Amino acid sequence: MRLSPAISELIRALRMLPGVGPKSAQRMAFQILERQREGGLQLSQALAQAVERVGHCEVCRTLTEAQVCELCSDDARRNSGLLCIVETPADVLAIEQTGQYAGCYFVLMGHLSPLDGIGPEDIGLDRLAERLAADTISEIILATNPTIEGEATAHYIAELARQHNVSTSRIAHGVPVGGELEYVDQATLGHAFSGRKRVEFD
Amino acid sequence: MRLSPAISELIRALRMLPGVGPKSAQRMAFQILERQREGGLQLSQALAQAVERVGHCEVCRTLTEAQVCELCSDDARRNSGLLCIVETPADVLAIEQTGQYAGCYFVLMGHLSPLDGIGPEDIGLDRLAERLAADTISEIILATNPTIEGEATAHYIAELARQHNVSTSRIAHGVPVGGELEYVDQATLGHAFSGRKRVEFD
Ligand SMILES: [Zn+2]
Ligand SMILES: [Zn+2]
Repeated sequence: MRLSPAISELIRALRMLPGVGPKSAQRMAFQILERQREGGLQLSQALAQAVERVGHCEVCRTLTEAQVCELCSDDARRNSGLLCIVETPADVLAIEQTGQYAGCYFVLMGHLSPLDGIGPEDIGLDRLAERLAADTISEIILATNPTIEGEATAHYIAELARQHNVSTSRIAHGVPVGGELEYVDQATLGHAFSGRKRVEFD
Repeated sequence: MRLSPAISELIRALRMLPGVGPKSAQRMAFQILERQREGGLQLSQALAQAVERVGHCEVCRTLTEAQVCELCSDDARRNSGLLCIVETPADVLAIEQTGQYAGCYFVLMGHLSPLDGIGPEDIGLDRLAERLAADTISEIILATNPTIEGEATAHYIAELARQHNVSTSRIAHGVPVGGELEYVDQATLGHAFSGRKRVEFD
């Protein structure tokens, strides 16, 4: 049997959402049409408005409706001289939730990936170079993902920072807090050993 | 930190989808805005169109854009005299996928639930009674869910059918095909025993 065209189209469109397979898309479509039509219309409008209004911060490239995002507009953060480099806006949120960092961010919106034709300018490194040249940044903190592409991108940016005489650090990799050693992957455990710190007695 | 209002609103709206918690809603919103703006607009339109166009079949109450759905418009199905009662349009799809049934459906769009104020007319039983009175149905097959409400609803409809001298059957409950006995719940296993069939030798 064929579903009504508008229902099929809705199921098809829902499948572009991450983690939504054919069965969940069907369940979502039926739930909206059976019980949540108001919610469905609200989602329709929220999607259209977000796509229309949300662009990128002129300073850090993160997603925002403003020309300059809230974090980049914060004087205290700007005056810290700290600039943390992350791959995505979700990484900014994750770091903000730790409450451990009060500097600025630069959001690459991806990572270097020569095979996919993604070069330095595609991830905003020309703009980053301008900021480094402007001499207001005292330390770059590299918080790209601990993947091959993330490490390569971090390496490239470290080199860029060195050219501008800006000191650079990489966030530590190791065993997650609260994790059990047994379940930690080999690469992480390797990092945990090579990055070990001497226990100091006072 | 606060997200841009249009992003927060999108995350909030995505959470009304079944199975979507705060983390997945955030991941969905970022993915749409970072990489799938076209898909986001398509979903926005599909939602608006489905909510506007999709109503209920005049005959069986299922979700459709037409006045009378495809299955109810099928002469062969109508002439079968079989009417299968299900709770939702998803149940129709599931039964159609078995390829074991070629009659008509009546979709309750729910079940009786006196505590929530859902009575017989809310699930279309007045219209079902009219169809039973019209004398074109030879057998009612009750395929409501094997839950307390589904069983109570099935019982109510069986009584309605008896008043119209229409014979009624209930789909069999038992151990799922391919399932392991060990993992089948107690109630299902109870049904499997009480509904056991004698093995016939020819
Ligand atoms: Zn910014
Ligand atoms: Zn119908």
